[in-house]
Amino acid sequence: MVKLGVIGYGYWGPNIVRNFSGHQDCQVVAVCDKSPAALARVGGRHPGVRMTTEADDILTSSEIDAVAIVTSVSSHYELAKKALEHGKHIFVEKPFTATSAQAEELVELAERKNLCIMVDHTFLFTGAVRKIKQLVDDGSLGPLYYYDSTRVNLGLFQHDVNVLWDLAPHDLSIMDYLIGLEPDLVVATGGAHVNCLEDLAHLTVYFPNNVIAHINVNWLSPVKVRTTLVGGQRKMLVWNDLDPAEKVKVYDKGADLRTEEGIHQLLVSYRSGDMWAPKLEELEALQQETRYFIDCVRCSMKPFNDGEAGLRVVRILEAAERSLRQHKEVAYSSVR
Amino acid sequence: MVKLGVIGYGYWGPNIVRNFSGHQDCQVVAVCDKSPAALARVGGRHPGVRMTTEADDILTSSEIDAVAIVTSVSSHYELAKKALEHGKHIFVEKPFTATSAQAEELVELAERKNLCIMVDHTFLFTGAVRKIKQLVDDGSLGPLYYYDSTRVNLGLFQHDVNVLWDLAPHDLSIMDYLIGLEPDLVVATGGAHVNCLEDLAHLTVYFPNNVIAHINVNWLSPVKVRTTLVGGQRKMLVWNDLDPAEKVKVYDKGADLRTEEGIHQLLVSYRSGDMWAPKLEELEALQQETRYFIDCVRCSMKPFNDGEAGLRVVRILEAAERSLRQHKEVAYSSVR
Amino acid sequence: MVKLGVIGYGYWGPNIVRNFSGHQDCQVVAVCDKSPAALARVGGRHPGVRMTTEADDILTSSEIDAVAIVTSVSSHYELAKKALEHGKHIFVEKPFTATSAQAEELVELAERKNLCIMVDHTFLFTGAVRKIKQLVDDGSLGPLYYYDSTRVNLGLFQHDVNVLWDLAPHDLSIMDYLIGLEPDLVVATGGAHVNCLEDLAHLTVYFPNNVIAHINVNWLSPVKVRTTLVGGQRKMLVWNDLDPAEKVKVYDKGADLRTEEGIHQLLVSYRSGDMWAPKLEELEALQQETRYFIDCVRCSMKPFNDGEAGLRVVRILEAAERSLRQHKEVAYSSVR
Amino acid sequence: MVKLGVIGYGYWGPNIVRNFSGHQDCQVVAVCDKSPAALARVGGRHPGVRMTTEADDILTSSEIDAVAIVTSVSSHYELAKKALEHGKHIFVEKPFTATSAQAEELVELAERKNLCIMVDHTFLFTGAVRKIKQLVDDGSLGPLYYYDSTRVNLGLFQHDVNVLWDLAPHDLSIMDYLIGLEPDLVVATGGAHVNCLEDLAHLTVYFPNNVIAHINVNWLSPVKVRTTLVGGQRKMLVWNDLDPAEKVKVYDKGADLRTEEGIHQLLVSYRSGDMWAPKLEELEALQQETRYFIDCVRCSMKPFNDGEAGLRVVRILEAAERSLRQHKEVAYSSVR
Repeated sequence: MVKLGVIGYGYWGPNIVRNFSGHQDCQVVAVCDKSPAALARVGGRHPGVRMTTEADDILTSSEIDAVAIVTSVSSHYELAKKALEHGKHIFVEKPFTATSAQAEELVELAERKNLCIMVDHTFLFTGAVRKIKQLVDDGSLGPLYYYDSTRVNLGLFQHDVNVLWDLAPHDLSIMDYLIGLEPDLVVATGGAHVNCLEDLAHLTVYFPNNVIAHINVNWLSPVKVRTTLVGGQRKMLVWNDLDPAEKVKVYDKGADLRTEEGIHQLLVSYRSGDMWAPKLEELEALQQETRYFIDCVRCSMKPFNDGEAGLRVVRILEAAERSLRQHKEVAYSSVR
Repeated sequence: MVKLGVIGYGYWGPNIVRNFSGHQDCQVVAVCDKSPAALARVGGRHPGVRMTTEADDILTSSEIDAVAIVTSVSSHYELAKKALEHGKHIFVEKPFTATSAQAEELVELAERKNLCIMVDHTFLFTGAVRKIKQLVDDGSLGPLYYYDSTRVNLGLFQHDVNVLWDLAPHDLSIMDYLIGLEPDLVVATGGAHVNCLEDLAHLTVYFPNNVIAHINVNWLSPVKVRTTLVGGQRKMLVWNDLDPAEKVKVYDKGADLRTEEGIHQLLVSYRSGDMWAPKLEELEALQQETRYFIDCVRCSMKPFNDGEAGLRVVRILEAAERSLRQHKEVAYSSVR
Repeated sequence: MVKLGVIGYGYWGPNIVRNFSGHQDCQVVAVCDKSPAALARVGGRHPGVRMTTEADDILTSSEIDAVAIVTSVSSHYELAKKALEHGKHIFVEKPFTATSAQAEELVELAERKNLCIMVDHTFLFTGAVRKIKQLVDDGSLGPLYYYDSTRVNLGLFQHDVNVLWDLAPHDLSIMDYLIGLEPDLVVATGGAHVNCLEDLAHLTVYFPNNVIAHINVNWLSPVKVRTTLVGGQRKMLVWNDLDPAEKVKVYDKGADLRTEEGIHQLLVSYRSGDMWAPKLEELEALQQETRYFIDCVRCSMKPFNDGEAGLRVVRILEAAERSLRQHKEVAYSSVR
Repeated sequence: MVKLGVIGYGYWGPNIVRNFSGHQDCQVVAVCDKSPAALARVGGRHPGVRMTTEADDILTSSEIDAVAIVTSVSSHYELAKKALEHGKHIFVEKPFTATSAQAEELVELAERKNLCIMVDHTFLFTGAVRKIKQLVDDGSLGPLYYYDSTRVNLGLFQHDVNVLWDLAPHDLSIMDYLIGLEPDLVVATGGAHVNCLEDLAHLTVYFPNNVIAHINVNWLSPVKVRTTLVGGQRKMLVWNDLDPAEKVKVYDKGADLRTEEGIHQLLVSYRSGDMWAPKLEELEALQQETRYFIDCVRCSMKPFNDGEAGLRVVRILEAAERSLRQHKEVAYSSVR
């Protein structure tokens, strides 16, 4: 039985508590939030859970095995560090930390103390991303060419970070999972119109093997778009996360080089064939992910969405932020 | 009566000949193409028109008032220069020229000889762009925030240029028309996967007054997308050129800064209201544009899509190309 | 304070209990279900509520003012009758009853005992239907021409009735609300493919004033569709209930008769103009409806979705069923 | 070489002339239209073709082998009869004739004189319908359950017939081709709002083997819809003819009866799987069909879209018209 404490019961916290509570071999023993109104909601929904306004009650409790940190990003590092120091496994909201230096320190600390860090990259547990990962790994798409995502809507979801730190971590974690390579270069552009935080940004990430990723995030779009194109040499796919019925469509389309006989000239020829929308698993992503965290804790496994994965995402965000300010490329290796 | 010669009868030439032929005060007197098969098609459709494989037959003919140059971009400069030198007005396919130096020289030459240059930025004559221009100019959108276009599909349309020079001129000419400002900076990223020409690219253009444009072009997309978001302080719009019925949707949505009383803190509040899809003019864009060229020639008017407009687009393409190679921003002023 | 008992805690019951519980001047005092598992769920979510497997505990309780009947349609009549006889107001799931004779008897009984019947025609409380009703009533659409609804998907939702009784009541209640007239004739067609219950059906309802309604329901459709066209002399609208952003689109389109001069011939001319998607209220429909029931009970008001409204829907279903069997029209008046 | 005369050069005639002219072993020798303006258009596009305002010039010409009749339906019978009597094969616009008696007479006459009748059911030659026919015939869909088509838009296309005769022949010919059975019963409903011709109608056709077809046609719809569902026991498909990229989507979905163990109760279980959009042939349908007509004439083959097929469609229209007036079912056999 994993005994869990949860810090933060704002927008996302209730989902975390509900999902961890739903697993047989996990018990949510305490929830911390500074707002009495939030704690009142906990009490109404989860009668047996201890409530506190002091994070230390959870971080230092000898009763607790693992801590879920569901606060705003600026507080992640301190809470996570203390939790690790007191021997607790941690489940941390994305983005992992506010700086890559913080992330590195936490990764090192967890390794030293043999503790598990899982960063809540929830999208990796959706039926759509699992299916895309499978299509990449089994060679269906062929060698990857590009990942291109548009994630725009009206309204910000976090008040203390810009649109890059708010929306891009989703795509960065998915891209990291699918491509499986460390980036070479990052180039970002963007602008701030309503206040001093960027409300729209565009991010290009150059990878080895000529793989390129592009991410378009925007808080000032009149329509909501969640569409990603993934292009490979053999096949290409479109993932529209807002399509209720067919989120992933795989196209038997591609481009090949051929030599035109006689004139020894290289020409590009385009292939166009059937489209196929595979049926996706419909399990709740967060249920899968919390299940996986409990298993990792119990069996001392290293999750694939571990501190290192969180660190890679933070590094790209940091490089992007620097590129945005300096109007030029930033080498991923320079962020280390 | 404007007497017109047309050079080039490949993909676009037939539309040019058909539209100019349809106007009462214009006569297409000659068409040039190097391919006998192309000329045979001219003969079948336009019995009275003179046919030639030599451009000079048109460029130097004393009978001809104006020349439409509908060839690949690499030949524009030489053909246009000779036409202007022989006192002919010119209608030139986009992009205007292969370099900004060429464009500057042609603009200067035309000015000296008091001749008209029109660059075929056809989209400016569509019902959609005319309506958007009107909404920008009458203040409906409020001060502009951004222009963000996705123009992707499977397959290239030009064999001698990369995706930037093939697809981006459409958006650059529209953006130039709507925003009406000279850019400050250009940042471009992209990659080449099938052969040595870039097959996907992303372009950010920074303008004064905090206006930002972003253009995503891709020859390796499994689906065709032609969608542009235009965001202003008061309203925002989506232009989906593939929607047969409602291409332009205007949203009464926006973001405002407000001060929360008591705590003197600035907060962003989002507004969401009705959507409105105005009925658009359904006239063929090229018919409007060729009509406008004839009027400009006959009345010695300077068109708004003149050589200067063509030059501005070529400058941005040149800056983008340089940015793509050097992985950093390029000042628009440095291209002059 | 209205004290409510709820009978039935299956698919829809939890929503009923949750919504009634959320109003300040209502208290859900008891819930009845024959399944112990269902009652266990009640206990988990609503600790203070009395639980029973006997409907009579609720129907005869002196503590209870009103009863919500959320069982399958075959049991509505008996439960409702007993509730009314014991002086309780009733809130009944749609369709109201299994026969029009039952509905008539209940309406009469309630009138005699001065009790309120509300039939749960939830859709009438959605932002979409409220907006459409407003557009009909304020004359925006002009005199109505037709109501045409497609409500198809894969899978049945009720095991004891055919697709007509399962899906059509939604449209019949909306149509009744919008058109506000008693039908003249009903014609229905359909078929049963998987077992002996019709799994697809098409219903035409002729109204006075040349208004016609058509409803297409199907349990064997591979895609889910919830689209209704409403045509009037001045304007027409499309209501797509599955569109997350713009459910109702109003078109400035229509057809007019005009006389062609000289030849005294009547011609139809079509008008095509702007489209407009009004912002809709986003309140939960069932929250509005339960609020309205409490108000009706407390202030002795007759709701517009009363037993008479429920009766009219059942009459059309009965006429449709008869038409389906006899392959001919059935007069609405013959069902009385 | 088949020598063809064409009668009627209005909306559809130009497509007929252009397509027949494009085949090597066919020569369009004469075109007839009562309007001099129409004939002027013929002259401009097809210089060598003889023009006449008298149908008899074509019907009685000894030079002509076959006649295409592209006039309004009321004149089909007389023109077709005279053409057959003069030994000409005929290609007739849909619907074949204004009454089934006329169609029967023409079929008999053609048989007697050993001449070919082809009715222009163009849709049967589209890539979409050919693919659907293949999926039906190879058993992919399993035994057919239903055909359900929505064909609505704003505006009528024929001035002398109601919406049933204008729009439904498309679906009736497709349905006839796919199902391959003679109907049992026809039930139709509808209404006339703008003038005395029905502007909307709904048609149900009952076939043997429990196959049912439903067709919804409407001239007063604010949006254009061309969507057909075809349901079979094994699979189901959606054909959206307005989708430029994926017109036909095949769903691995269905419903099965199963017995629940122990309780001997029959339950319906629903299957949901992948979706698949096959690549369709992109050849112009009318080019295929005119090619096929020439082949049938030259090789004395009976086309599958022959006079009998045209007769079956007219019979259903006649039955539907009668059902619409009498508000009851009409047996297909009673129309014979």
